[in-house]
Amino acid sequence: MEFSVLKKDRSSEARAGKLQLAHGTVETPIFMPVGTQGTVKTLSPAELEDIGAQIILGNTYHLYLRPGQDLIKQAGGLHKFMNWHRPILTDSGGYQVFSLAELRRIREEGVTFQSHLDGSYHDFSPESVVYTQRCLGSDIMMVLDECTPYPCSLKQAIDSNELTLRWSKRSLKAFQLTEPIYGYEQTIFAIVQGSTYKEVRQHSAKELVELEFPGYAIGGLSVGEPKDIMYEMTAVCTEILPREKPRYLMGVGKPEDIVEAIGLGVDMFDCVMPTRNGRKGTVFSRNGVLVVKNATFKNDFQPIDPECGCYTCQNFSRAYIRHLFKAEEILGMRLASLHNLHFYLELVTMAREAILADNYLNWKKEFLERYFAEEC
Amino acid sequence: MEFSVLKKDRSSEARAGKLQLAHGTVETPIFMPVGTQGTVKTLSPAELEDIGAQIILGNTYHLYLRPGQDLIKQAGGLHKFMNWHRPILTDSGGYQVFSLAELRRIREEGVTFQSHLDGSYHDFSPESVVYTQRCLGSDIMMVLDECTPYPCSLKQAIDSNELTLRWSKRSLKAFQLTEPIYGYEQTIFAIVQGSTYKEVRQHSAKELVELEFPGYAIGGLSVGEPKDIMYEMTAVCTEILPREKPRYLMGVGKPEDIVEAIGLGVDMFDCVMPTRNGRKGTVFSRNGVLVVKNATFKNDFQPIDPECGCYTCQNFSRAYIRHLFKAEEILGMRLASLHNLHFYLELVTMAREAILADNYLNWKKEFLERYFAEEC
Repeated sequence: MEFSVLKKDRSSEARAGKLQLAHGTVETPIFMPVGTQGTVKTLSPAELEDIGAQIILGNTYHLYLRPGQDLIKQAGGLHKFMNWHRPILTDSGGYQVFSLAELRRIREEGVTFQSHLDGSYHDFSPESVVYTQRCLGSDIMMVLDECTPYPCSLKQAIDSNELTLRWSKRSLKAFQLTEPIYGYEQTIFAIVQGSTYKEVRQHSAKELVELEFPGYAIGGLSVGEPKDIMYEMTAVCTEILPREKPRYLMGVGKPEDIVEAIGLGVDMFDCVMPTRNGRKGTVFSRNGVLVVKNATFKNDFQPIDPECGCYTCQNFSRAYIRHLFKAEEILGMRLASLHNLHFYLELVTMAREAILADNYLNWKKEFLERYFAEEC
Repeated sequence: MEFSVLKKDRSSEARAGKLQLAHGTVETPIFMPVGTQGTVKTLSPAELEDIGAQIILGNTYHLYLRPGQDLIKQAGGLHKFMNWHRPILTDSGGYQVFSLAELRRIREEGVTFQSHLDGSYHDFSPESVVYTQRCLGSDIMMVLDECTPYPCSLKQAIDSNELTLRWSKRSLKAFQLTEPIYGYEQTIFAIVQGSTYKEVRQHSAKELVELEFPGYAIGGLSVGEPKDIMYEMTAVCTEILPREKPRYLMGVGKPEDIVEAIGLGVDMFDCVMPTRNGRKGTVFSRNGVLVVKNATFKNDFQPIDPECGCYTCQNFSRAYIRHLFKAEEILGMRLASLHNLHFYLELVTMAREAILADNYLNWKKEFLERYFAEEC
């Protein structure tokens, strides 16, 4: 992996960079569509390429349970299995073990949990999830971490973070002691935890920086805490994380969160929002959010976003897409998901251009003003 | 509309033709993907064009109920509403009134029925469905007919057919007395009924031929009768229907039915099977039918049909598609539907080539032998 910051914005911490991975180059800041079960929901890999997706995310927890790492290994890795030839980042499964699994017991060794699919018991350890991600063959692997809920006591945050730090050391060692299975390089990122406690976050970030991971994620945010705390914690982390390494804010977020976090020096994002909201008939536009299945749009023959160049907006009206949702036709979910991901990818592209033009804060202000003007 | 038979097969009744419609030329024999609610389920118009769909079907009953003919008129017709620029055939709604609607009362004037969506009452008459199809703007409209169930008594078949004949005259008159709404030509086909009674079918066909409709459909088949009766009734009709006009066998069918009916002189087909089966994980191949979600295919990294050139087969394995179905991912339904329609369209293309080469019966025999060899 090679990462270079091409340009740092003058008036903010925003940076435009380039991340060289085994399956291609990613221009940062970037949004990564979420492909939980080996598919970005409702969309084909060809469509993802068409809208300019440069890297997607896969969920280790889901793929480990189904179809399983052995099958994906037989297929020659996740890229081949799902026919996606650009980079993939896989999470460690930690977050899903804490949010989805039925029962879980955390010990020093790792975590035992029950599958949400069939109740079967499984163990994840820092070493096992590195191996699983070797089988998946992701360009970027993530360390196993413990995710604290919000709110969470200081003691809980400290104890949990210490465990995550010990697990991170073991993860790095496992990474160094194992080889890629498919002949191309994989890399691994650590995850800063510490809940909403500044000192714990700082301690976490400093310790992880000592370990010299190739990249760093900020985890445990966007879990219910107020927005200002999310931004504050993000800033606490980015202040410490090395400027020459990529920074990834996990699970974030709304368009406004992404543009704020870019201003704080974050390079990478993922979130289910564009696809999940799309499947429910909520779409994004430069003028804010539209619930396209609402009766308001019954006779509205404009595209979702008249300025948008995506396949959906170039070819279909709000009235038609509303009809598809009312009639429960899958094409509605497809068109809305495609548009929403296109919107997110265009958002980070515009942000990047603003950074390169040394104009990030002005651009952000204009974007947010229009986005919140509510004049759809 | 202009139809010409380019070539009649020497050893069968099969014909290769050309059907010129307002939105383009259709090469016959042709299969029409079914787009019930203004969308061919799970697929985009761009995908349909890619697999070579030349004409699709829309259902008047469904579109009349939702989104309604007024909305489609506001949109400038069904082509614009759904962004499909090639020909569309719409049925009259008759079949759905008899198969889907909650309650129905047939009188000379027309049929009153309750919507399967909300229980509201509606009337269809031969004249009203012509008007609805003027609003839809289909290239080919169909007359309102009464569909008899199977089995059905001779008396019921005769009475029903007489009503359909009277309705057909009224339909033609309504067609002649009304103008297209969108400036391009529409045409109208009559429907031969008569259940499984040879004499009633013959009477129906002769009477309708007298009326000089631009094209003829054969309706009321593939409703549960044995296959040999379906083929026999089809032959009874095609013997009488004028050779210089297109013939459409409604709602048929399986690949083997289509190749048989082409041999009997049918030019046009529609059926939900490729899309409906696709959504359930059943796919067609030159070697027969595959239930791709079965455990047999867990580790099968071949495409559905190794000889198929569709996007699905060029890029994805049976194992991956099976995974998508097990994980209830929409992409599985999409890939299977796309492949199945591609298979049907390739089937009629191959049939056409065989006719043009004066080799239809040999080709049909080879196709069926391999298709039923069960060696997937």
